[in-house]
Amino acid sequence: MIKNLRDALGKKEVVVEAWIQDYRSSGKITFLILRDLYDVYQGVVKNKKIDLSQESFVRIKGYLKDAVLKSNELTIKDKELVVEEIEIVSPADPLPIPVVEKGVNTGLDKRLDYRYLDIRKPSVRAIFRIESTIINSFRRFFYDKGFIEIQPPGIIATSTEGGTDLFPIKYFEKKAFLAQSPQLYKQLGAISLGRVFSTSPVWRAEKHNTTRHLNEIRQLDIEVAMADDMEVMKLLEECIQFIVRSVKKENKEDLELLGINLVVPKAVYLSYDGAIKELNNAGYSISHGEDLDPGAERKLAELYPDSIIFVHSWPIELKPFYIWPKDKNKGISAGFDALLNGLEISSGGQRIHRPEVLIEVLKEKGLNPENFKWYIDAFRYGAPPHSGWSIGLERITMALLRLENIREVALFPRDRHRLTP
Amino acid sequence: MIKNLRDALGKKEVVVEAWIQDYRSSGKITFLILRDLYDVYQGVVKNKKIDLSQESFVRIKGYLKDAVLKSNELTIKDKELVVEEIEIVSPADPLPIPVVEKGVNTGLDKRLDYRYLDIRKPSVRAIFRIESTIINSFRRFFYDKGFIEIQPPGIIATSTEGGTDLFPIKYFEKKAFLAQSPQLYKQLGAISLGRVFSTSPVWRAEKHNTTRHLNEIRQLDIEVAMADDMEVMKLLEECIQFIVRSVKKENKEDLELLGINLVVPKAVYLSYDGAIKELNNAGYSISHGEDLDPGAERKLAELYPDSIIFVHSWPIELKPFYIWPKDKNKGISAGFDALLNGLEISSGGQRIHRPEVLIEVLKEKGLNPENFKWYIDAFRYGAPPHSGWSIGLERITMALLRLENIREVALFPRDRHRLTP
Repeated sequence: MIKNLRDALGKKEVVVEAWIQDYRSSGKITFLILRDLYDVYQGVVKNKKIDLSQESFVRIKGYLKDAVLKSNELTIKDKELVVEEIEIVSPADPLPIPVVEKGVNTGLDKRLDYRYLDIRKPSVRAIFRIESTIINSFRRFFYDKGFIEIQPPGIIATSTEGGTDLFPIKYFEKKAFLAQSPQLYKQLGAISLGRVFSTSPVWRAEKHNTTRHLNEIRQLDIEVAMADDMEVMKLLEECIQFIVRSVKKENKEDLELLGINLVVPKAVYLSYDGAIKELNNAGYSISHGEDLDPGAERKLAELYPDSIIFVHSWPIELKPFYIWPKDKNKGISAGFDALLNGLEISSGGQRIHRPEVLIEVLKEKGLNPENFKWYIDAFRYGAPPHSGWSIGLERITMALLRLENIREVALFPRDRHRLTP
Repeated sequence: MIKNLRDALGKKEVVVEAWIQDYRSSGKITFLILRDLYDVYQGVVKNKKIDLSQESFVRIKGYLKDAVLKSNELTIKDKELVVEEIEIVSPADPLPIPVVEKGVNTGLDKRLDYRYLDIRKPSVRAIFRIESTIINSFRRFFYDKGFIEIQPPGIIATSTEGGTDLFPIKYFEKKAFLAQSPQLYKQLGAISLGRVFSTSPVWRAEKHNTTRHLNEIRQLDIEVAMADDMEVMKLLEECIQFIVRSVKKENKEDLELLGINLVVPKAVYLSYDGAIKELNNAGYSISHGEDLDPGAERKLAELYPDSIIFVHSWPIELKPFYIWPKDKNKGISAGFDALLNGLEISSGGQRIHRPEVLIEVLKEKGLNPENFKWYIDAFRYGAPPHSGWSIGLERITMALLRLENIREVALFPRDRHRLTP
């Protein structure tokens, strides 16, 4: 049996399956708007009474004929399906949220309550098809370069960054935490395997509830032995350009539907000092030693449109303990951030590969080296210099599609108040 | 600077980086066995005293000359590196476990304590390079077929399978659990998006400690709308064959190193009834209504070598609540398992797509439909029939490489007693 109309277009007699997206009766004729996995098309029922409801899933036996109506709603316009037999496989109850939004704008919260219905909308499906291309083209880029994909653990025994934003978990007789980053583990991978990448969920127990944060996100990580911060920034530049080219190629229809004209971004490299100066010159007041706030990120995007903006050589005190102190006298680290369309989408840097430096920096940051013993010890057996970064999957999707709320790009978002569906 | 010798082979004067895998002195000459990201080769130091230790990471300036010694240990045999300058970038302390095992066999537990050193062994690196090919070729297979990759949540509010083997987690003011499977979420994806796949970590709080179970594993999942159990078994057959062909092509050297002759498996389809009969005929005593134990799985592998053995049409009572009751009178479900080299590597089936059937089966299984309300409700809006399966990443790697302990294929395994590194 051929299930989708696109595959049956050459035939006359067909059996297909579809959702009834909409319907209207006109005398003895009922017109159906049918939707299958790929297309929206018209069905015609003559002289038959059927129990119809929007979103019911049906199996239809019928034949194809040239269409008269050529509505914009349809993706197959030149053929219509004359229904001979129709079986209601799964009847639909009255819908709690509309799947076809005609002038209605359902609130995001309600849409998320019924996410499984929300994702039937073509515009919402387009977002997740694009996100799928983003993560898969990231992997393809590095796999083709000979990187090894590693699987970092989700359950860890110690805090990664010394912070307190961890979800505790009862692990048999022990106490453990959910990983807030694969950072330490990808470093262990890189210092022995050389070049590694991973795509993994991470969890942050931050209590705020903003439009750019979730408590569960996915990270696209790489870590490279024998490389410094400048070398991995170049990899990030090429990777993002590869991702954007892939989306433009593989999601042409989705981009059109969303009205997005995607531009392959060029790269701009600014030192932290340079970025602070440029911001102040452009009238955005920010002091040296401050982190870039969302306003500053948007301002930089105005100054350099359609660009990946790398801000490198950050002050040591603004970066985590594992970032290499590039110039101790000047207080400059080998850490960087990358911004796209006014949003931080990645951060990274060269790491500390010498245990004695690690111990020193941990103490300077007010952390206890004893708590990181297993990690420090890993560098005692000839760890090569290494660098890496991570992209937030939801952040880059949001930045490319210029969406306002990160929940739009998470299929089943987890925030402070949402655990279901 | 060229860092790996392979990339520098055309040149005479080179600067490279490498680990000192081993060394020996002979009068005024010191011979080094050097290892970089790709190769093992010989270095020669004349008239120079250096502070050497195994696994120190060094930067060497020198020149290449034709080699005399052609040891089997080396992967570059025809050239050797004459060392003019050597810088110890990261000195190594005495090793807690050997990286070159000469007649020594370090126990697995100790190897896992120092996993970051253990993965420097070529044979261990080979395993993880192969695992990386497995997961990436799985994704490529389905991405190329137009499937959408989805990101199921790791934190969930309710038990997936009604079992008690869940890790509880404190989620702000609420109680939550770690996902033991993306099952319910991939179904929600499929009933609206059509064809989805995911690769995600899952957690099971099972208290046993065996050679084939871990408490954190990775699952390769698919779910397909408009498909029955037979159709997705065919997809599984083709997917596994694609994975094996990919590994044979992309990991030739790794397979040689491990001494594995990988055969693209053919597929064998047995009903549960048929499998029980064949087992008893072959002298393996097992009753109808029993699950297949490890002994039965190995026996089937003897009967059908080099095969993916599909055992389908299981008794309803041996399968989870969400499996479609294919024939209620005969008590047969649309659930199946797939075995490879004597190991269960996958299970799946057609799902229940009608809410009234779901409620009935939940009650029959002694589960409370009230606890699954949000999930049942998702099927009230025209859910198409759908089927799917999941492969355990560690299980399939273990089966293909015929390894005895699942910990060999987990980079940082999590079992009842191990939370570090």
